[in-house]
Amino acid sequence: MTRTKRSSNLKLCRVAIDTYRENVAYMHRECPIYRAEGFQALSKIEVSADGRRIQALLNVVDDDGIVGTDGLGLSEQAFDQLGLEAGGLVQVAQAEPPGSMDAVRSKIAGERLTQEDFRAIAKDIAAHRYSKMEMAAFLVAAGQAGLDRDEVLYLTRAMTETGERLNWHEPLVADKHCIGGIPGNRTSMLVVPIVAAHGMLIPKTSSRAITSPAGTADTMEMLATVDLPIERLHEIVRMHRGCVAWGGNANLAPVDDILISVERPLGIDSPSQMVASILSKKLAAGSTHLLIDIPVGPSAKVRHMRSAMQLRKLFEFVGDRLGLHTEVMITDGRQPIGRGIGPVLEARDVMQVLKNDPEAPFDLRQKALRLAGRVIEFDPDVRGGQGYAIARDILESGRALAKMDAIVKAQGASQAQHATGRFTYDVNAERSGVVSRIDNYFLARVARTAGAPMDHGAGVTLLKKIGDSAKKDECLYRVYAEFPADFDFAKNLNRQHGSGYTIGEESDILEPYVEF
Amino acid sequence: MTRTKRSSNLKLCRVAIDTYRENVAYMHRECPIYRAEGFQALSKIEVSADGRRIQALLNVVDDDGIVGTDGLGLSEQAFDQLGLEAGGLVQVAQAEPPGSMDAVRSKIAGERLTQEDFRAIAKDIAAHRYSKMEMAAFLVAAGQAGLDRDEVLYLTRAMTETGERLNWHEPLVADKHCIGGIPGNRTSMLVVPIVAAHGMLIPKTSSRAITSPAGTADTMEMLATVDLPIERLHEIVRMHRGCVAWGGNANLAPVDDILISVERPLGIDSPSQMVASILSKKLAAGSTHLLIDIPVGPSAKVRHMRSAMQLRKLFEFVGDRLGLHTEVMITDGRQPIGRGIGPVLEARDVMQVLKNDPEAPFDLRQKALRLAGRVIEFDPDVRGGQGYAIARDILESGRALAKMDAIVKAQGASQAQHATGRFTYDVNAERSGVVSRIDNYFLARVARTAGAPMDHGAGVTLLKKIGDSAKKDECLYRVYAEFPADFDFAKNLNRQHGSGYTIGEESDILEPYVEF
Repeated sequence: MTRTKRSSNLKLCRVAIDTYRENVAYMHRECPIYRAEGFQALSKIEVSADGRRIQALLNVVDDDGIVGTDGLGLSEQAFDQLGLEAGGLVQVAQAEPPGSMDAVRSKIAGERLTQEDFRAIAKDIAAHRYSKMEMAAFLVAAGQAGLDRDEVLYLTRAMTETGERLNWHEPLVADKHCIGGIPGNRTSMLVVPIVAAHGMLIPKTSSRAITSPAGTADTMEMLATVDLPIERLHEIVRMHRGCVAWGGNANLAPVDDILISVERPLGIDSPSQMVASILSKKLAAGSTHLLIDIPVGPSAKVRHMRSAMQLRKLFEFVGDRLGLHTEVMITDGRQPIGRGIGPVLEARDVMQVLKNDPEAPFDLRQKALRLAGRVIEFDPDVRGGQGYAIARDILESGRALAKMDAIVKAQGASQAQHATGRFTYDVNAERSGVVSRIDNYFLARVARTAGAPMDHGAGVTLLKKIGDSAKKDECLYRVYAEFPADFDFAKNLNRQHGSGYTIGEESDILEPYVEF
Repeated sequence: MTRTKRSSNLKLCRVAIDTYRENVAYMHRECPIYRAEGFQALSKIEVSADGRRIQALLNVVDDDGIVGTDGLGLSEQAFDQLGLEAGGLVQVAQAEPPGSMDAVRSKIAGERLTQEDFRAIAKDIAAHRYSKMEMAAFLVAAGQAGLDRDEVLYLTRAMTETGERLNWHEPLVADKHCIGGIPGNRTSMLVVPIVAAHGMLIPKTSSRAITSPAGTADTMEMLATVDLPIERLHEIVRMHRGCVAWGGNANLAPVDDILISVERPLGIDSPSQMVASILSKKLAAGSTHLLIDIPVGPSAKVRHMRSAMQLRKLFEFVGDRLGLHTEVMITDGRQPIGRGIGPVLEARDVMQVLKNDPEAPFDLRQKALRLAGRVIEFDPDVRGGQGYAIARDILESGRALAKMDAIVKAQGASQAQHATGRFTYDVNAERSGVVSRIDNYFLARVARTAGAPMDHGAGVTLLKKIGDSAKKDECLYRVYAEFPADFDFAKNLNRQHGSGYTIGEESDILEPYVEF
């Protein structure tokens, strides 16, 4: 019902303020148009000229130094988005709320949305026509009323269509993805070299940590440059059949990134949103075959086999209908994988496995081989059940390490520090017994509090895992920090909340939800 | 899980930018703390010094003219809220998300919240610790999962407790409130002088238009100053037993205003939120007896008698438990009340009724007398059923007009223009017949498009109401605008969507939902 009123000419200028994913416009309080239009600070306005138009949140300025009374300032991103020269004339008007908000209100009322509704929503979000609160309304409504599986399909398709799509010009483009939540779970850095050494195309684009102590991109960055232009990625993949790069440069399913910038601070995460987010990114990245890892455990994202199965069906349903062959492995998510948590410590685990070091963490090696084996079985020439043995041969023969070295060299070997944090303390067992539980969330929190992933050498090394015996005062894990303040914060966390380990009897150990 | 990191000293400065209800902090990109902390544009930071602390959204600045590398800028409201001198040293840290977001996430998951949960949410919102998207998450979750009636009670109580509470030091403080949605429905400006002339205390604080073509405060402003300091309001009410003022100066239930700033642009409006919003404001305003007007009709906010009854029960339940005697009148909401829509045109209707002008709109007069009668019956000395006759006597004797004149004089007679808009056009009947329906929403939209309430003389005058005969090309209503552009916009609206009137047979007329 916002009415579009008369608009007039203002001189465009760039205000050197970075407002990230939110466009902001600055108008002087004495600007005649501001007064005439009855705009209000924080109202959304539309700025247009020469057929180009953007929407922006209005901030009112009382300082000629920022914008004059005859000018309209735009924050850096908004200015770039409009793409016009400073000094040119622009028109402003009250912005109409995005048309697709009607669909959001229908969803709030509990109704089912159509493919066209989701297309309109995704298009408006991609065009930055949604404010953060409008996105929050959409996400909460969709999460709470729930999306049925057709709606998840529609949303995924709409999100895929909004951005670029990579095309690798090959019939089989493999990928793997873990839904997250398990610290230290760096299997991609093993699966990629193994699968690429087998000759399959596996151009892996990963994210940085959002709420975890390290993402695959953060850990890979300890070894190689991950921030690569898309053309360079293509060259590397053509040459080496694989890569492990950061996916942020490719404008793949940009709606997903925008929605994540709202989901993350709100701490909300619904299964339908997760499926749409993962599959739209993979489709946009040009994958044809995808293996999804769903860890299940009492402190994993998915806590019950029942939920894991539901999620699996949803992945399969949506993936199949969008032409992405999707398989799901449900894995043991009772505890962190490997020993290290944090970029440097995780990279060390990965290299030990690649080097067939007898000290290499057994669980990381096993899990990576199982996953790689399943991906290799996407190859029509591999018989069902042979993948694991092929993967193991590739690893044990050193071909995986050689492939990783080649990929690292191609991406550009890293100059990053490989030292662990200077400040360390040990968290010890409070009684003797057998480790029966480890809290994934808590261990991740300790590692983050100690400085990971920002401080590369910060984090945690686990010395005991489930099933290990521990004597009273024996070390369970060691915490590393690079700065004294973080060291104190982490220590305090342990002092207040304990170790995150449960020490009990052999019989207390939870059966893994999955044979593995 | 956000971690609080080490913080350092920055020089506070005020950035002359008005960001309305959202605190914004400005930090230079080259500021050493920005780099060290790994802040991100739009992350929420906490700014503190001398035991005072506020939260603000971070904008990153690339211009020393706005803030230097050793400074921290705050937008005008944020600077005032922190309340410290420019130049002093402040500390910044990553802000913890508000603790009560856990309760919001429980609500998203469909759980029931406790009184303590609602207290924590209201307290965090009042302290500006919620971002707009966090509020949107709360509102959508509460609206969609629904609040049971105990939860509405908890929310109302929590909202009442966050702000000031007026105390009139009298046992009976009357008030009336309409849930809105009916254009021209300016009964408060009649009820107040009638009830005050009867001797009851009725200190009415009203809102300005949010999405309507005029609020009571906008229309009253055509006659008198409505923006009065709270002390002055007390004096006027002591002297004259009533007032019609704008409620924005009193800091009553401030959480309500903050939530409305999110509900309005989202266009969401749930019954529980409406009840909590209205009752918390009235409780904070010191009312003891409240009459609620719920208009029902096909284009009113409430469209079915069933919903009106549910809403009535909810008002009664919450009101009773909070010591506010609440009565509900369900009224005829099939069409606008009176003739005028827009500040000047509505003020004219009101004055005609007060002056007992034979031309005065009958429906406005009748409705106001019924409402005033019910309020007068709150008086223990008035027998049930006598209120209407008392109200009519007060109006017909001229005592209501005299009381209104006294109140206007006390508040300060207005200097506002009383002219209707210079540009007018008529909307005529497309066929002959009987007016059977009038669309409230559409008429409100025409009046707003023509410029109401900002342009005081803009709006609509209805010449035909339901039941009236109209010949083809006879005028149904006249539209007034003050500016040519608005005139064109409104005319276009009519050209595209018709008149909003349905002309049919006598038998097409919808029975009113309510005998009236």
